[in-house]
Amino acid sequence: MLNSESELIEQFFRGLGATRSDVTLGIGDDAALLSMDGGSELVLTTDALVEGVHFLPGAPPHSLGHRALAVNLSDIAAMGATPRWALLALNLPQADERWLQPFADGFGALARVHNVALVGGNVTRGPLSITVQLAGAVTRGQALRRDGAHPGDGLYVSGYVGDAAAGLAVLRDGLQVDTEAADYLRRRFEYPTPRVELGQELRSLASACIDISDGLYLDAQRLLAASGCSARVEITRLPLSPAMRVALGERAWRFALDGGEDYELCFTVSPDREPVLAELAERIGTPLTCIGRIRAGCGIELERNNSVMQFSPLGFDHFRG
Amino acid sequence: MLNSESELIEQFFRGLGATRSDVTLGIGDDAALLSMDGGSELVLTTDALVEGVHFLPGAPPHSLGHRALAVNLSDIAAMGATPRWALLALNLPQADERWLQPFADGFGALARVHNVALVGGNVTRGPLSITVQLAGAVTRGQALRRDGAHPGDGLYVSGYVGDAAAGLAVLRDGLQVDTEAADYLRRRFEYPTPRVELGQELRSLASACIDISDGLYLDAQRLLAASGCSARVEITRLPLSPAMRVALGERAWRFALDGGEDYELCFTVSPDREPVLAELAERIGTPLTCIGRIRAGCGIELERNNSVMQFSPLGFDHFRG
Repeated sequence: MLNSESELIEQFFRGLGATRSDVTLGIGDDAALLSMDGGSELVLTTDALVEGVHFLPGAPPHSLGHRALAVNLSDIAAMGATPRWALLALNLPQADERWLQPFADGFGALARVHNVALVGGNVTRGPLSITVQLAGAVTRGQALRRDGAHPGDGLYVSGYVGDAAAGLAVLRDGLQVDTEAADYLRRRFEYPTPRVELGQELRSLASACIDISDGLYLDAQRLLAASGCSARVEITRLPLSPAMRVALGERAWRFALDGGEDYELCFTVSPDREPVLAELAERIGTPLTCIGRIRAGCGIELERNNSVMQFSPLGFDHFRG
Repeated sequence: MLNSESELIEQFFRGLGATRSDVTLGIGDDAALLSMDGGSELVLTTDALVEGVHFLPGAPPHSLGHRALAVNLSDIAAMGATPRWALLALNLPQADERWLQPFADGFGALARVHNVALVGGNVTRGPLSITVQLAGAVTRGQALRRDGAHPGDGLYVSGYVGDAAAGLAVLRDGLQVDTEAADYLRRRFEYPTPRVELGQELRSLASACIDISDGLYLDAQRLLAASGCSARVEITRLPLSPAMRVALGERAWRFALDGGEDYELCFTVSPDREPVLAELAERIGTPLTCIGRIRAGCGIELERNNSVMQFSPLGFDHFRG
């Protein structure tokens, strides 16, 4: 029985079509890496937002425009690449200007921030879903990948984790927190910040990198599996926003480990490079937190105040039974 | 009131995001043309198939895999480019191996024919829709565009037109034709042949080119509008398949002018190059038919046995009122 998106892609789609020597990296990382003539590699990714799966019916279109691009920018960021050109495929139940204008505004504003041009589009009548494809470039051989971590490397995460999942819980599940925290958490879900600049800085620093879309625990495991390593993570070190700490207390760590939609970067750095990270964090204004260390073996060992924890992740997988 | 896909894209999405000097051609042609370093331009396109819009519920998954890639290959063909890499974003109601395997087989078989590698994928639970992004390359400055037709050029179309629309009418509307014709027409709808090789040959021959996805009349008008020209078309010259002629008689020309989903190429050739086309048609085994001639002015004048015809196209537009 198939029950995960990764298994589906693995079984039916990996290696489909022709085998081409210009495919540096195909299915299985945050984006594909493709050789063009000249000194650059092309970086391609696609990600979709589907109503009822990635957003609630009636979700504000401005934030959907932002998020649809942000989730793709995050994949480009995880490769350390520079985003350039976007395509947008929109399935819309009807042509409603009051929806389209704020959607376009949200998309356009984030695109301008990252110097991305929308170069193609397709609009079809259908149940609301938004698919963006993003193309970027990176100097040949310089892209960040998932498979470069080594035992001894520090395991890092950018920003704060869990906010977006808590924001979704506020919106969807009626999670009760004070108004100020609710506003902050909801905004973190609706307007994720893709770490494009950080990804580019990490090209010369990180040994492996992935973006956190399905929860830190699940995505860190993907990085470890690709690298053939394990990690020990101290959960009291997980970077929690002040709002999470105050509003959710003891429940916060579960959102931080398991909550999707963060679009932070999870990456590894060899010990000799780690001293540089504090200065980088300050320069780009984003916390970069060491949450554990890479080891030989496989899987993640979670510790809390030096005792091993049991944790069963739910993560987010579209076809889990 | 907005009522067409083109108007929607024009009003809300053209020029959205950053303005980049490496965008040779953005929204408004069959695909985007983008400068990379080196001597090639990157060609990017996206097209989606949505259940209930582009295919009937229960449509055979093998043909959907073929068509989802074919409609994108056709855009690359219309630019005269070479396809290279595909991304696939699939919204599926459930993970059903009996659907996924033939879908992947249909996609993979056509991909291998055209030396295309599937390099990225996204699978989400949702109402069935299939979005493909295709990337290709073309020597800088060599791409075919819509805007190069000149008065005096011949107006050509490849293959036969109207078959796919008649095939859909057999499947959906119970159009009655004999079994052999029904099989042929249905197959032309379900397994369109993207004219990739022809597009590449036309780089040195055609002055303008577009692929026929929404019907010859509508797509030829798009080419004419982009080129600032008009055309006189003799409808008795429209290339009809033997099955269409026999099975549909007088109704055939309407399918040929107005029927979508053909994925043939419509292109213009200056008179000095036209003598080469017969040899090309023979070499690639595809009819190339002159259906009229480009003139100054705007719009299409249809003639039938030298008298002007009135024609009101329905074409295919997702948001027509």
